[in-house]
Amino acid sequence: MNELQPLDLLPVSDALGRILAAPVVAQRSVPHFAAAAVDGVAVRADQVEGAAPESPVRLVLGPEAYPVNTGHPIPPGFNAVVMREELAWAPDGLSVLLHQPTRPGKHIRAVGEDAAAGQPLFPAGHRLRPVDLGALLTVGVTEVQVWRQPLVGFIPTGSELVEPGNADLPPGQITESNSAMVLGEVVGWGGQPRRHPIVLDDRTALREAVSTLIDQVDLVLISAGSSQGSEDYTVHVLRELGEVLVHGVAMRPGKPVILAIVRGKPVIGLPGYPGAAWLASYLFARPLLYQFQQQPVPAPDRVMARLAAPLTSSLGFAHYLRVRLEPSTLGEDPTAHPFSSKSGLIRTLLEADGLAYIPPEVAELPAGAPIEVHRLDTHR
Amino acid sequence: MNELQPLDLLPVSDALGRILAAPVVAQRSVPHFAAAAVDGVAVRADQVEGAAPESPVRLVLGPEAYPVNTGHPIPPGFNAVVMREELAWAPDGLSVLLHQPTRPGKHIRAVGEDAAAGQPLFPAGHRLRPVDLGALLTVGVTEVQVWRQPLVGFIPTGSELVEPGNADLPPGQITESNSAMVLGEVVGWGGQPRRHPIVLDDRTALREAVSTLIDQVDLVLISAGSSQGSEDYTVHVLRELGEVLVHGVAMRPGKPVILAIVRGKPVIGLPGYPGAAWLASYLFARPLLYQFQQQPVPAPDRVMARLAAPLTSSLGFAHYLRVRLEPSTLGEDPTAHPFSSKSGLIRTLLEADGLAYIPPEVAELPAGAPIEVHRLDTHR
Repeated sequence: MNELQPLDLLPVSDALGRILAAPVVAQRSVPHFAAAAVDGVAVRADQVEGAAPESPVRLVLGPEAYPVNTGHPIPPGFNAVVMREELAWAPDGLSVLLHQPTRPGKHIRAVGEDAAAGQPLFPAGHRLRPVDLGALLTVGVTEVQVWRQPLVGFIPTGSELVEPGNADLPPGQITESNSAMVLGEVVGWGGQPRRHPIVLDDRTALREAVSTLIDQVDLVLISAGSSQGSEDYTVHVLRELGEVLVHGVAMRPGKPVILAIVRGKPVIGLPGYPGAAWLASYLFARPLLYQFQQQPVPAPDRVMARLAAPLTSSLGFAHYLRVRLEPSTLGEDPTAHPFSSKSGLIRTLLEADGLAYIPPEVAELPAGAPIEVHRLDTHR
Repeated sequence: MNELQPLDLLPVSDALGRILAAPVVAQRSVPHFAAAAVDGVAVRADQVEGAAPESPVRLVLGPEAYPVNTGHPIPPGFNAVVMREELAWAPDGLSVLLHQPTRPGKHIRAVGEDAAAGQPLFPAGHRLRPVDLGALLTVGVTEVQVWRQPLVGFIPTGSELVEPGNADLPPGQITESNSAMVLGEVVGWGGQPRRHPIVLDDRTALREAVSTLIDQVDLVLISAGSSQGSEDYTVHVLRELGEVLVHGVAMRPGKPVILAIVRGKPVIGLPGYPGAAWLASYLFARPLLYQFQQQPVPAPDRVMARLAAPLTSSLGFAHYLRVRLEPSTLGEDPTAHPFSSKSGLIRTLLEADGLAYIPPEVAELPAGAPIEVHRLDTHR
């Protein structure tokens, strides 16, 4: 499950956001030639040694004072640049007067000043930003080895599910929507989604779907069929195909999660309720995706808050509670408002801007109690 | 420049991260049928009115107590659900005993409890998150109108530039790398990049490139040819094709920026140095891209810091200084370390994690002076 994935070799311009699988060193020095750092003339420093305002040195344009613009190569034999603003042009137009000395290397960008060939630029595991792409090209690197993006299969299962787009929905049928939500998150976690069509409550069909998909992807998510209901075949199918490590997690929502291994690859059975499916993906699929990419799991953006209203929690269950955070005045912790059961599932999912964590050993909390909240992406 | 862009009509599953061009309302109620909220039996509440532990009510399975699982529709005529755990099964297996009354609506998810058909779900301008995609499908929305992503053309110009991939680089030639850096940022700002091949220092060729590209995109970036050098044709070409609004901005780096309008579309002439090109894109292209998408420009992540070493700044110029932020102990502001001129351009670009702003009226700052720093994306 944590073995190294095959690599992609990509042109630098296609590698934005991808993660380096190997360290990168500069392929050439930058600059790779001695270059003028200013507009002016290239000179030999020893020819200007005695220059002073009262005894300027005259240099013949061309052989003794070679005009250069910023970035131009310094011709062989020259070793300093005098800025255009510090020159006086002789009336003949064929020579320049210098009123002060200079020193070797002055206003010259030396070879390798920015980067020396062979110098380490990025370690393995570095995620490529726009500035990194520019730097790679500059040092002569045109292709990079990056981790392959993990492929995540998603099997929606349940005879109550209908593919989106059916305007007439009979009672008892619901639109399959968890795949769009979960696979949208998967994209943000660096994975590539592969959605399987809906599989009805048919044990053979589900086994066939898992068995086929598992060979094409790195991780399979099954939604749902993970509770104890009579038509929930997921756990039976996973037992037939592989090993079920966990069936049921002491958390709310999301209790009926299944964690399994099939042919050496992880399979997660997600609960059907959207909030529970989201949480199980966040807690169990997200860390796997970062591990596949050899990346540390990003730490959540934690904030301490004060609970707006008292709440009870099931002893022995970790409780992840969606809350709305209300900023406080004067540097106090923000207030966390849990959604009432009247808010509805959709409003709760859309309007929450934090996930409060209530540890298993806590059964009730009074209003004003301090709680840890992980900020959610609100995009608002 | 700020007129509305044409829209894209997209399937919801393709709309992750896109910005709604119009408000979205629920197309159907959720649930669209009265549904069991628990596993148990559907009953008529008035039939169980007198139920008590000492006088249970017996209901015939089927006509009087209809078995339902969570999510199943409530059959017509029934108006409450009794949880499986609260039932006693009669020995005949054909009826159930209820030991307490219930009330109409108990354990039933009413039609529209989550969302009512016609109810506003998202305003125009909302950027679609994974949870939003799930919600849209759930309320029967399968396509959304989103703002078209602005197209950004990039013309690298300069006879010193060479396309990436040429291993042998003669003195005076450099690899074109600014397009990868700037267009990488453009992607993050919501734009779609269109890179033009390198245009040599040839006034006719540059005019032709701008003239062609401007009709295909929403914004053109030209890099570089924006200083006063003898071969910098950009400003002349832009004067011929349109109107140059600004040539030179009182800032460092990035002074030789050009802002122009050609056929009603914005054109930005970027400086050639990577740090200056990055800054000019950040300050001038980024806000345009957000405006094209009818979005507020995200506020920078500002932090106050203490300057690690004294510095001088040019009076009358806004100075944007790349710094490394060193966290402080014990709640003090972090320390901002400017990069020395010995750090090299590449190291400075790659290792900076903040951009310090020195206002134009400030000529020097002592070590320890408070300065405002905008955090940069470090991805580390």
